[in-house]
Amino acid sequence: MDVSERALLAAIARVLSGAGPDVVVGVGDDAAVVAPGSGELVLTTDALVEGSHFSRSTASARDIGYKAVAVNLSDIAAMGASPRYALCALTLSDAVEAAWVMELFGGMREACDEHALSLVGGNVARGSEVTVAVAVTGEVAPGRAITRAGARAGDRLVVTGTLGGAAAGLRLSTGRTPPTDEERAAIMRHVRPTARVGEAGVLARFGATAMIDVSDGLALDLSRLCASSGVGAQVWLAAVPIGPAASLDEAIGGGEDYELLATLPDEAAVAAARGELAESFGVPLIEIGSIREQLGMVAVDATGDEAPLAPAGWDHFA
Amino acid sequence: MDVSERALLAAIARVLSGAGPDVVVGVGDDAAVVAPGSGELVLTTDALVEGSHFSRSTASARDIGYKAVAVNLSDIAAMGASPRYALCALTLSDAVEAAWVMELFGGMREACDEHALSLVGGNVARGSEVTVAVAVTGEVAPGRAITRAGARAGDRLVVTGTLGGAAAGLRLSTGRTPPTDEERAAIMRHVRPTARVGEAGVLARFGATAMIDVSDGLALDLSRLCASSGVGAQVWLAAVPIGPAASLDEAIGGGEDYELLATLPDEAAVAAARGELAESFGVPLIEIGSIREQLGMVAVDATGDEAPLAPAGWDHFA
Repeated sequence: MDVSERALLAAIARVLSGAGPDVVVGVGDDAAVVAPGSGELVLTTDALVEGSHFSRSTASARDIGYKAVAVNLSDIAAMGASPRYALCALTLSDAVEAAWVMELFGGMREACDEHALSLVGGNVARGSEVTVAVAVTGEVAPGRAITRAGARAGDRLVVTGTLGGAAAGLRLSTGRTPPTDEERAAIMRHVRPTARVGEAGVLARFGATAMIDVSDGLALDLSRLCASSGVGAQVWLAAVPIGPAASLDEAIGGGEDYELLATLPDEAAVAAARGELAESFGVPLIEIGSIREQLGMVAVDATGDEAPLAPAGWDHFA
Repeated sequence: MDVSERALLAAIARVLSGAGPDVVVGVGDDAAVVAPGSGELVLTTDALVEGSHFSRSTASARDIGYKAVAVNLSDIAAMGASPRYALCALTLSDAVEAAWVMELFGGMREACDEHALSLVGGNVARGSEVTVAVAVTGEVAPGRAITRAGARAGDRLVVTGTLGGAAAGLRLSTGRTPPTDEERAAIMRHVRPTARVGEAGVLARFGATAMIDVSDGLALDLSRLCASSGVGAQVWLAAVPIGPAASLDEAIGGGEDYELLATLPDEAAVAAARGELAESFGVPLIEIGSIREQLGMVAVDATGDEAPLAPAGWDHFA
């Protein structure tokens, strides 16, 4: 690091001085103090680790900061909640300079500003690799959080946007030839995922019974939703929306798309949510299968044949 | 890692299944959901990084987990607030095994249980070194948070417990000869700091005007309190309570004691707080100086001579 901790913290505080009127004490004290709303609190944390989630040689500091916030926003969205406050525990290595850190916070602030999220505090430590651990506090009306546990047999299984693009982007991000437009779109899916915060609100309004964000792959995250709900599911392979430059395998087993996987009670709810999502966000809502009583997951191909669908996906220790 | 991520997360969830009645959705969904109290929210995060804050060869997993929570509790305490909920973003290296991680969570739970804090969620990622990033949400009555900014000229400067012990413990923890009882006490100060949560409540009740926890050294943390309050301070060197096996230099410049440094309005408040702290917690409250209008810090020695006190202490990038 090319500056002292004190100088760095002062510079960070200047980047972050954009807190809302509900922030009683912001950056710069032992802890932040905020005036809560009337809802229940939704709490989550997720970290991006150099070498595991990003490389400083292929991702910009701004993108890394943006994504570190976005992956947390995605978890808040998946509960049907609204994000409110963020904290960041940052580990920096000797290899990064103050300017890089400022860009990182710039990216975090960008993601925060998109959702009126206040970055109210944080901490900086030193290590051998960069780690960006973010914690976000959200809010939801009492009793209205959408867990993974509410899916019922007969529910329609829907997904926002497309899947597999982020996995394709990761695969393509180390390529040596200039990317095509489609490949560039895939790489953007990997480096700058969009948290479906507004979309989650629409799905909640139309009665989503269960919801999860697709962070570790469709098959694995669907298996989690099914396990929590005590149900099984069938997935129509031909309906799975495949992201830019991605294969069907990547759409089913690739992580980091941060789309929403939800269950809706009937066709009318799917249609209503689909209409509002397309109109308000330009994002498609695709029905990719249904929930059934029988445990386990099956994939149904275009000819109607069923085969077991393994809950395979991203395992950080595999 | 000797198990899959899924098996590890399931094991962690079993260790953590002790959440209170205000936890609506605990570990195992996209985010936790809790029913807040009527106060303002206090938010903080702090991380322990292998190689920088601890070594797995000299500290046990249980101690590391305990300390990772304690350092956050200390920040909540320093606002005069009560801790409520914790989250943990954990980065694990290939060198640690599942049993080590279970012990780490056991230590986190121990620290949580001491303060009725619910560990409601977290995340596990993989990296080249272990990082334990914890975020804690606390609560304080509206308008009653004690910041660093309220100290006024004439206030008495007090500190809980003793200082420098943790720095001495760090120095001694790599020693090759068996430690004496005093050295062992110092090492315990370093590996298992006590967050002064109850003590902070007492100081708040007796009118503390400003408060900070001594994490980076008395001189540096006092300089932060003074800067926030727009005041100066004098410190009586002979009054500074020196921790086990520590030198005066370590008591003034050594970090990680996690004692509270507070300002109280008058002698009566100091006496009242001192009495209750000794009775309720067995912890001394020592008056070590006073706040004055003139900016800057001075150290007063036993003969009454004043010398400038430099705001030196722990800098993570020094």
